[in-house]
Amino acid sequence: MAEHTVTLDIAEEPISVPSGTLLSEAAAQAGVDINQPCGGQGRCGRCAVQVTEGDVRRRSTLRLSSEDVAKGYALACQSVIAEDVTITVPPQEKIERRLTTDRTVAEVTIPDGYNPEQTQTIRRVALTLSPPNLEDQTDDWSRLQTAARKQAGVTQLKTSLEILQKIGAILREGEWRVTAVLNSKTWDCPDCPAHLLELYPGHFTEDTPLWGAAIDIGTTTVSVWLVDLLTGKVRTQVAEYNQQISRGEDVISRIIFASKNGGAEKMRELVRGTINDLLAQACKRVKAAPSEIFKVTIAGNSTMIHLLLGLPAASIRLTPFVTGVNHIPTMAAAEVGLDIHPRAMVDCLPGVASYVGADISAGVLSSGMADSEDVVLFLDVGTNGEIVLGSKDWLVTCACSAGPAFEGAGVLHGMRATKGAIEEVWIDGKNYEPSFRVVGNVKPRGLCGSGLISLLAEMFLTGVVDKGGSINTKLGITRVRDGDHGSEYVIARADETKHEKDIVITNVDIDNLLRAKAAIYAGFTVLANSVGIPLETAEHVLVGGSFGKYINVEKAVEIGLLPDMPWDRFQFLGNTSVQGAYLGLIDHNLRRRITEIAARMTYIELSADNTFYDAFMSALFLPHTDMSLFPTIAAAIERG
Amino acid sequence: MAEHTVTLDIAEEPISVPSGTLLSEAAAQAGVDINQPCGGQGRCGRCAVQVTEGDVRRRSTLRLSSEDVAKGYALACQSVIAEDVTITVPPQEKIERRLTTDRTVAEVTIPDGYNPEQTQTIRRVALTLSPPNLEDQTDDWSRLQTAARKQAGVTQLKTSLEILQKIGAILREGEWRVTAVLNSKTWDCPDCPAHLLELYPGHFTEDTPLWGAAIDIGTTTVSVWLVDLLTGKVRTQVAEYNQQISRGEDVISRIIFASKNGGAEKMRELVRGTINDLLAQACKRVKAAPSEIFKVTIAGNSTMIHLLLGLPAASIRLTPFVTGVNHIPTMAAAEVGLDIHPRAMVDCLPGVASYVGADISAGVLSSGMADSEDVVLFLDVGTNGEIVLGSKDWLVTCACSAGPAFEGAGVLHGMRATKGAIEEVWIDGKNYEPSFRVVGNVKPRGLCGSGLISLLAEMFLTGVVDKGGSINTKLGITRVRDGDHGSEYVIARADETKHEKDIVITNVDIDNLLRAKAAIYAGFTVLANSVGIPLETAEHVLVGGSFGKYINVEKAVEIGLLPDMPWDRFQFLGNTSVQGAYLGLIDHNLRRRITEIAARMTYIELSADNTFYDAFMSALFLPHTDMSLFPTIAAAIERG
Repeated sequence: MAEHTVTLDIAEEPISVPSGTLLSEAAAQAGVDINQPCGGQGRCGRCAVQVTEGDVRRRSTLRLSSEDVAKGYALACQSVIAEDVTITVPPQEKIERRLTTDRTVAEVTIPDGYNPEQTQTIRRVALTLSPPNLEDQTDDWSRLQTAARKQAGVTQLKTSLEILQKIGAILREGEWRVTAVLNSKTWDCPDCPAHLLELYPGHFTEDTPLWGAAIDIGTTTVSVWLVDLLTGKVRTQVAEYNQQISRGEDVISRIIFASKNGGAEKMRELVRGTINDLLAQACKRVKAAPSEIFKVTIAGNSTMIHLLLGLPAASIRLTPFVTGVNHIPTMAAAEVGLDIHPRAMVDCLPGVASYVGADISAGVLSSGMADSEDVVLFLDVGTNGEIVLGSKDWLVTCACSAGPAFEGAGVLHGMRATKGAIEEVWIDGKNYEPSFRVVGNVKPRGLCGSGLISLLAEMFLTGVVDKGGSINTKLGITRVRDGDHGSEYVIARADETKHEKDIVITNVDIDNLLRAKAAIYAGFTVLANSVGIPLETAEHVLVGGSFGKYINVEKAVEIGLLPDMPWDRFQFLGNTSVQGAYLGLIDHNLRRRITEIAARMTYIELSADNTFYDAFMSALFLPHTDMSLFPTIAAAIERG
Repeated sequence: MAEHTVTLDIAEEPISVPSGTLLSEAAAQAGVDINQPCGGQGRCGRCAVQVTEGDVRRRSTLRLSSEDVAKGYALACQSVIAEDVTITVPPQEKIERRLTTDRTVAEVTIPDGYNPEQTQTIRRVALTLSPPNLEDQTDDWSRLQTAARKQAGVTQLKTSLEILQKIGAILREGEWRVTAVLNSKTWDCPDCPAHLLELYPGHFTEDTPLWGAAIDIGTTTVSVWLVDLLTGKVRTQVAEYNQQISRGEDVISRIIFASKNGGAEKMRELVRGTINDLLAQACKRVKAAPSEIFKVTIAGNSTMIHLLLGLPAASIRLTPFVTGVNHIPTMAAAEVGLDIHPRAMVDCLPGVASYVGADISAGVLSSGMADSEDVVLFLDVGTNGEIVLGSKDWLVTCACSAGPAFEGAGVLHGMRATKGAIEEVWIDGKNYEPSFRVVGNVKPRGLCGSGLISLLAEMFLTGVVDKGGSINTKLGITRVRDGDHGSEYVIARADETKHEKDIVITNVDIDNLLRAKAAIYAGFTVLANSVGIPLETAEHVLVGGSFGKYINVEKAVEIGLLPDMPWDRFQFLGNTSVQGAYLGLIDHNLRRRITEIAARMTYIELSADNTFYDAFMSALFLPHTDMSLFPTIAAAIERG
């Protein structure tokens, strides 16, 4: 096959690839990472590059104007090398660091009566052995096992070859005084032998921490809590965007990317990179070494867990939507590829189904709903929306393909909740002039989820949009105008913004937001119907997910995203997933409960539910077709 | 540091090494393996090479004559590079292949009532799963676990990440019919979950074997039995010299070599190479692939097991003579470095002490002595001599540092029992003329162990040597003469031999043989004394070890190697170690018994026993100082 030379302006040197190579793959071979937020489906247009010499074969030019194509622009994920080319790669969109200080640090309460000696599976014990002599020629390993039995009550102890290879040297270096780190009382096999993970010469001081980490792998954000397993205290919390974002913003895009040649390995590498960076960062803060971490507990949706472990994820996306593995056995860190102690225990929490993952099992535990006498509605709004309805007696759950609209995707000027994002909007009912608050108090660059909800609610209540979501073009104001994407409302004019361009919301954006909120509300309806109770039976509405934390309930109810209930029933819990991972990390009884909860949840597949479509269609209005479900809003509109 | 060029005649190219590099290490770097049967201690002289240009610094010239040194000979393990040199490496002594057909194939009896379904831990089960659909979205792994529970009675199943990564593809390729290989009912943890080792699409036919291997790692010979785990049948037996021989003939030399820089890794490599070659050879014979072997059970002395696993062995050699590990946990083949199925279970049998290893625990099981009502004396004569005395009620054991004299080492014309070895000798009582039988019916090259015993017995009974082992120089025959090593007796003259040199036995040789047999007999004495019974209480004398198989009892009693008892008490069992490994491989109850036996054996450390020295000194005669212990021999001498 013919070979062609591809010269990228930002690559170290030109490379040679066979005819027919995808431009994005050629770039990867040249060491240039091109963002593909839609997973390389040609849907987002964010991988556009400019061909300056020669040309490429364009399979698709979706999202490129004819002017763009005339200037040589091409989608890297949709263009094929057919001759020698020179390519200019525009600056890649940088993922900004999340403002960890104000957005992710959670208050953590160690559970009442927590006693690590009884509930922590990882132990550190100081052992003193009698040296061998001609009257006592017991082998080193049996000698250590005897000491562990007599001095630490460990009846059965196993270990790995690496430890056996060095045990003799360590016993002698420590002059028969050693410190053992062991994993015992595993939650899933109480009769299994304890596992000696590491052995150090000499005795440790008691105030030396024994490190563990609770991890939540979100589609968007990965959170890590570093915990001293001896006290249960969270010593530091860090979070970053999941580096996989550059290969897909939602789980579907990521699965598609992972199904491509080398895609699964790339996905593993990106998420491991994210986790390892965070662990290193957390360790640095508390002056620990990552190799001192002996246990991590990981929550995340099913796709995130599959991609982390290199489990094929394609079946998650295709009917009948099954995962490879919901209950992952405990593994060693070296197997998973985490840069911590190589024999550290990695415990991935169990999921329920393809779209109700370990993040929800963990969230249900940490929300407390599985112990509740009252009926509770739990909603986790992240990149997807998952809902659980139930109490200590029963739990039903479903997942809504809400999409990442509330994270700013699919909305023209949407963005994540970082510096420059409009997070709240007010519209004057008389002149329709908006005012707003911006994250970081700077000039705005776009709208984040809470800003979009707030904006939509205000537009609806002031009549800038109607019940159906159409922008009212008859108000006679300049803020409403015709744009490239139909009618639009201008929230901020170019002279007010960071990038000196107008920030608008369009009819298309509003449609996307309506579909997202309708999907979630329809989920509530289907779950309540499935158990034959009205939704308002729920005494508590618990909202998890880092996004959920910043929703204004009033506004969310006004657009029909949340049910119309007394406000005191709502509670925002933050990242319930990492909280659940933390509880599973420090207490093996709670860890067992997560598995029990996952087994107890009845999953309802909305795509197979014949009431879902009607419920969805009815919810595609502001706030809903059936206004009797939203009496407070109906009254407010009545009042004018 | 100065670098010098070393040019070896048989190396591909000259290499450069720093001043002070050991000649043997320089050779290794140049890819030239120089035999070091004494482990590089400068004791055996077998690593001599000739320096033809330049010179080396000789730390020791033991075993080299001044003529040799004048000709430029130097010991590779004792000479240091100090300038540019050119070296001629004499042809390295080749280790001949053992005659596997007549010397190692044992008759194997499958134990009565053997039922693999009940006693074999490795199982192969055919499973048929129902495919998922929108009403049953169970994940692949849970679906498989359910099938294993319902169709194979496996209540708990765990597996590795590699399997989880491919489970989805295999289920679909097999259209939901799969064959699982699993390890269940482990002998040491009956409550532990079963382990899914491999999964294949489709169902196997029932006559497809499921392979396992029983392995004995002898200091000299490695034996492998390939077994169909579904029937318990031994399908083929192979054996080869342990490739470690080139780095030491006895365990002490090997430990010394392993303690050197890179030595332990070299030792692992050599023994793994031997085992992997044998497994490949065995598989080829029965048209199997090594990757189809799912379990191996390994016996061997403690040093062999330590060297196989890379466990430091130095403490075995140094007082108080302790091993690193007697009870090795089951490991995966990939961890051990065996080229079989990477997740195959590798079970190294337990040893008792530094010099009573798993070979003896296994041998005691296969000999049946641990179930015997009568007192039994068990002797394993290999490169070392280990003795066990006891019955179903008690077992005492010790190890005799007999050395490899009976394997031909430490004897001028000693050799192993291969083609050309004199294996039996008769001496005419009138003219002192010998006649002999040679392995392979060819011209002789030397004397093997059984030949040496036979020769010594004949020399003693005919008066060619006296009670103290001195050659009688007053017989007036030309076969007795003065040689380089004192008096010697010529067994074969140059014109009768393969290499056209005389084959003799010297006073020094006889001394070495006496010390070896005295060490063993003293072991018998100490064990009997330790339990306060006369040695003749033993109703059976069981002799294991491949060497033991070829001893002529009469001759061995005549020299005082074996106790003077009725011949019908003696039984030769062959390689009891591999037989025990085989039993442990096919039956987990017998496997548990080996561990119980190892725990039951009371080890007596001869170096710490104050009666050993006297017993040894008394046994340094032919047959013994105390002739009342050898009434049959005393009577024979009386008769003349």
